[in-house]
Amino acid sequence: MANVIRVCLVGAGRAGQVHAESLVQHIPDGKLVALVDPNPTALEKAGAKFAVEARFSSLEQAIDRAAFEAVVITTPTFTHRGLAITAAAGGKHIFCEKPMALTLEECDEMIAAAERNSVLLQLGFMRRFDPDFQAAASRIEAGEIGQPMLVKALTHGPGLPPAWARDLKTSNGMLAEVNSHDWDAVRWLAQSDPERTYAQVSNFKGAKHGVDTPHFYDTALVNIRFNSGALGSISGVCPCDYGYDSRVEIVGEKGLLQIGDVRGQAVVVCTNRESGLVTPIFRSWPERFASAYVREMKHFLGCVRSGLQPSVTGQDGRWAVAGVLAATKSFFEERSVRLAELLDAVPEVTEATR
Amino acid sequence: MANVIRVCLVGAGRAGQVHAESLVQHIPDGKLVALVDPNPTALEKAGAKFAVEARFSSLEQAIDRAAFEAVVITTPTFTHRGLAITAAAGGKHIFCEKPMALTLEECDEMIAAAERNSVLLQLGFMRRFDPDFQAAASRIEAGEIGQPMLVKALTHGPGLPPAWARDLKTSNGMLAEVNSHDWDAVRWLAQSDPERTYAQVSNFKGAKHGVDTPHFYDTALVNIRFNSGALGSISGVCPCDYGYDSRVEIVGEKGLLQIGDVRGQAVVVCTNRESGLVTPIFRSWPERFASAYVREMKHFLGCVRSGLQPSVTGQDGRWAVAGVLAATKSFFEERSVRLAELLDAVPEVTEATR
Amino acid sequence: MANVIRVCLVGAGRAGQVHAESLVQHIPDGKLVALVDPNPTALEKAGAKFAVEARFSSLEQAIDRAAFEAVVITTPTFTHRGLAITAAAGGKHIFCEKPMALTLEECDEMIAAAERNSVLLQLGFMRRFDPDFQAAASRIEAGEIGQPMLVKALTHGPGLPPAWARDLKTSNGMLAEVNSHDWDAVRWLAQSDPERTYAQVSNFKGAKHGVDTPHFYDTALVNIRFNSGALGSISGVCPCDYGYDSRVEIVGEKGLLQIGDVRGQAVVVCTNRESGLVTPIFRSWPERFASAYVREMKHFLGCVRSGLQPSVTGQDGRWAVAGVLAATKSFFEERSVRLAELLDAVPEVTEATR
Amino acid sequence: MANVIRVCLVGAGRAGQVHAESLVQHIPDGKLVALVDPNPTALEKAGAKFAVEARFSSLEQAIDRAAFEAVVITTPTFTHRGLAITAAAGGKHIFCEKPMALTLEECDEMIAAAERNSVLLQLGFMRRFDPDFQAAASRIEAGEIGQPMLVKALTHGPGLPPAWARDLKTSNGMLAEVNSHDWDAVRWLAQSDPERTYAQVSNFKGAKHGVDTPHFYDTALVNIRFNSGALGSISGVCPCDYGYDSRVEIVGEKGLLQIGDVRGQAVVVCTNRESGLVTPIFRSWPERFASAYVREMKHFLGCVRSGLQPSVTGQDGRWAVAGVLAATKSFFEERSVRLAELLDAVPEVTEATR
Repeated sequence: MANVIRVCLVGAGRAGQVHAESLVQHIPDGKLVALVDPNPTALEKAGAKFAVEARFSSLEQAIDRAAFEAVVITTPTFTHRGLAITAAAGGKHIFCEKPMALTLEECDEMIAAAERNSVLLQLGFMRRFDPDFQAAASRIEAGEIGQPMLVKALTHGPGLPPAWARDLKTSNGMLAEVNSHDWDAVRWLAQSDPERTYAQVSNFKGAKHGVDTPHFYDTALVNIRFNSGALGSISGVCPCDYGYDSRVEIVGEKGLLQIGDVRGQAVVVCTNRESGLVTPIFRSWPERFASAYVREMKHFLGCVRSGLQPSVTGQDGRWAVAGVLAATKSFFEERSVRLAELLDAVPEVTEATR
Repeated sequence: MANVIRVCLVGAGRAGQVHAESLVQHIPDGKLVALVDPNPTALEKAGAKFAVEARFSSLEQAIDRAAFEAVVITTPTFTHRGLAITAAAGGKHIFCEKPMALTLEECDEMIAAAERNSVLLQLGFMRRFDPDFQAAASRIEAGEIGQPMLVKALTHGPGLPPAWARDLKTSNGMLAEVNSHDWDAVRWLAQSDPERTYAQVSNFKGAKHGVDTPHFYDTALVNIRFNSGALGSISGVCPCDYGYDSRVEIVGEKGLLQIGDVRGQAVVVCTNRESGLVTPIFRSWPERFASAYVREMKHFLGCVRSGLQPSVTGQDGRWAVAGVLAATKSFFEERSVRLAELLDAVPEVTEATR
Repeated sequence: MANVIRVCLVGAGRAGQVHAESLVQHIPDGKLVALVDPNPTALEKAGAKFAVEARFSSLEQAIDRAAFEAVVITTPTFTHRGLAITAAAGGKHIFCEKPMALTLEECDEMIAAAERNSVLLQLGFMRRFDPDFQAAASRIEAGEIGQPMLVKALTHGPGLPPAWARDLKTSNGMLAEVNSHDWDAVRWLAQSDPERTYAQVSNFKGAKHGVDTPHFYDTALVNIRFNSGALGSISGVCPCDYGYDSRVEIVGEKGLLQIGDVRGQAVVVCTNRESGLVTPIFRSWPERFASAYVREMKHFLGCVRSGLQPSVTGQDGRWAVAGVLAATKSFFEERSVRLAELLDAVPEVTEATR
Repeated sequence: MANVIRVCLVGAGRAGQVHAESLVQHIPDGKLVALVDPNPTALEKAGAKFAVEARFSSLEQAIDRAAFEAVVITTPTFTHRGLAITAAAGGKHIFCEKPMALTLEECDEMIAAAERNSVLLQLGFMRRFDPDFQAAASRIEAGEIGQPMLVKALTHGPGLPPAWARDLKTSNGMLAEVNSHDWDAVRWLAQSDPERTYAQVSNFKGAKHGVDTPHFYDTALVNIRFNSGALGSISGVCPCDYGYDSRVEIVGEKGLLQIGDVRGQAVVVCTNRESGLVTPIFRSWPERFASAYVREMKHFLGCVRSGLQPSVTGQDGRWAVAGVLAATKSFFEERSVRLAELLDAVPEVTEATR
């Protein structure tokens, strides 16, 4: 067996537990050796669940007192920049959950820190490792459907996000928290970078849920134009209540390609002639993307071992952030926004800040 | 437009009304000119519904008093032989619903009568005219899946059949009333005649429905060996309650072919994450085979007009009856039955009886 | 049978023949009594095919010399206004194919002419009569999925449109010719009128097909905001080559609803383990919406008979035209366009013009 | 983490490697510590692949020289009895691949040996651990579809089996090698034991593949009657070439339940309007049942750890063998065979033989 990579997980929430489960149950050549969470209760609970003795309230502490090669960051978005820079400074390879950060400046700082310290930086776009998405991407790369003309992605999720994830200030909101994956997927599958975007959002359920977060929206529809001339759309609904729904549909010059399925299980039941056939739906993202989460983490540890660059990098994370920011600007200003407006405005990360 | 063929419909029940609807609404070059039913209430009702003035209690009367070229027989099975012979003697072309008759002798008499009087005889195996079944048959004929090795057909229907259709004496029971279509379909699609058959039946729901018909069964499973060596199965469940379900699956030397779908409508709804996606099922055979019923009647009238033999003949009807009788013998005697046992025992229709 | 309504069909092209087929084959209480087409060859051919003796080069002629109650208009868009006004002036009820007309002024003139002459005006949005769409609409009206939040429609069609249908001047282009149905469907199913729209278009295949029509596009993606706050999208690809594809997906406050299917037949074949399962796709719109075309025409003739207003009116046609014009303005001016910009600019049809 | 169970794998073939992969990659609390195979090349290769140093040509050797708690038997059927008895005598818990053995006597000896030595015996019916099958079984147990009336299972597999697996003497042939899973599944899901069976087999492809094994067949169709009155069928086709296909369909008194799907991936492609939509099929059983193999092995190790009986036991394996033998007798003797004919003929395992 390959030499085991030791991992420190930062963030004991839901996404953190998905990665911990991967490391403990499904990846024999990775070892979860340390846990970091500022919340002592969450830390205790996750530590017990995954049998990790080394538990810390900060990444700095963990770096000081425990030995590991890699850090997995699964905390709220607004903390990513600081944690990534700390990890890089400590010489630790970084796996960072999406969205990468709140601003392009933060993304650049993270990328620069990783480069400066010669550590890897992989972004948590697990769809790149889902067997369905990978098979589809291979077909597109092989030219099976020709040049992509239209790429439509959707992610609709069941539960109301926590307060920080609804607040544009701490998370950039649903387009970032729920649809980051779509921003990455459409760019990946369209094989082109987004050139401009237009977005509309609506708030249907906020009042019902007692949400008073300013600018809260639960429905979003984004229109994208890529450099290649391809058109794209992203839709987000959260909470959509009906299940976890994530699909992509691409029309290329030669044909159609669909990825994903509303159906979550190969079981069909009919016990009522009036209502008809019933088949289960995916209920959550860990259920839908179970194998993708394991595979992305294996890829990361494989890169740490080999020293090769991950296939999903900080640049990919940065593009998704750029899309989210442009779309957000779009719905605030009720106009289409070129991504260059934002990209050109970012001050270069100077040697000093590096 | 082609010259209009005038039709006398015998039997004002459910199947009769389906054909009346076809003639009145969907087949401009056919005209329903007379109705026959011994039940005055049913006759009145159907006559009014389809605006047919010429109403008779017997086919003989209709032949005497009305002018038409063709007869459509949709009465209970035990009446088919007599009606077909009367129609033939009157020089009327015959469309006869399945099952053709109760015995092979009856079938032979019907075939002989049609031949003797130079009238056409088409059997009501409408699946032969269903677009899905036809497309599949064309693919098999074109060799797309190679030599058929295994052919499995099912028909499950929702409602308890009427008393005469449950009684083996008046109908040969479910294998005839519900599964006649399957007997025809497997022989058609296997491209071979059945050589032997074995059947099992069960009665799960009879008591619940207060059925005291002797030998009643609601579940049947038939195993068939064809002359080509292909194997076949037919399953029947009636009442199955959950909807109308009719599908065929064929494995050929080169591949798989499936015909039909449980789903009855291209609509999917999900309003409950726990129960999942719901899609309508076919509720009845007139719904599932709506276009097939119109198309088979058009084919019949086209044959009447052109004088060409129908693509589904009395011989096809006779094979289905032979299968039903062999399978019935099989479950009574708990052994496999060669069809030759029955076919060889039929006395030839002599010139005298002709 | 009900009294027969006599129909004059104007336009012997593809859509005209679909309606002629409905009238001749499937609607016993409608009668195609006259044909109008300025092209003598097309007129001859259609006349022979549908056995219509009364053939004219203009609607005026037909009105002069033949007796009928209703006109079905299936000519290119730029002719609709004139024909409808002529028909109305002649006291004929009007069934008009989509798109209704080139401008809102034209729509208003057509509506005014119908009102002034007390004739009915039905628009050819046949999806309103498709069993799948109707079942879905009933579910929405019954509140099954709650208030619609997101409505996405697509129509992708296989063939390159004729020159007049690509030219914005004579047809308003693909968004009108192909996607008019979607404009009507999203408004119908969202249960709200569109408030603003943003559109992007692209031209991927024009050069390959030698198209030099100015402003030609083969790919379009439209973003809509409805008065209710619901968001909508329409995508169009033509020629898409891979088949005829028309689907709608709606997310309501309580759940998801999908209408339509890429699959065009309930037949599945697998003869190659590497390529997998193959199932037919719809190849054309007459195939996909066969029953809807018959049903919309039956509805129209039923209204003519009863005097009741059709369920799809000139106002519905006008809304679709407004959407197309706003979206076209949007992609030309690269900004979102409120429909009120166009609607408010239409001079009221004065008594004089009436 | 739980204490690690050490495993010795006997048989380095395809099934053996699937279990080795599970143990090495997916089951952190199981450890593959020894490999047994009489073929030195296969042994070397598997040893290197799974990094197992302890390699032996016989189970006896392994027991002598290595320390482990459990044995996984994946060798050809005719060796199972001997290996299981050796393992039991050595005090090792036994996981045995299907089919359990060649005769009921062998099954009884294996069961007796396990009991005598107080070791567990789990059979490799991995479908019991497949999420789709489990969900379906739970629904049946919960009464969702009522009392099962009809249970139909199929397994069609792509490749020609090796010589020993085609020879009735060494394997009982396809009904055992391919369809053992179906024998277990129908009994499990019908919630009743089989009472009698009738089978037909055919040989379509043998000559083409140069197979001269006596009594070779590639197509089988089995009819089963359960004690409850439920009817069942099993179909087998191997080599079927078109993919790996494994599905079950159940009709209960209240409704229909389908398990499994021909489709092997949530990807749909259409690049040809004439041929239509293409979607991948499962290509092999390790692909179709990937998670089931991991889950059954976890269950086994969990039972070893807890001392609880596995949910799939030697008795389940014995029932499948009884079905296979009765069906084989049936097609040889062309009659239906009661399982009691075989079950009653088995001499009780005496204390002496224990």
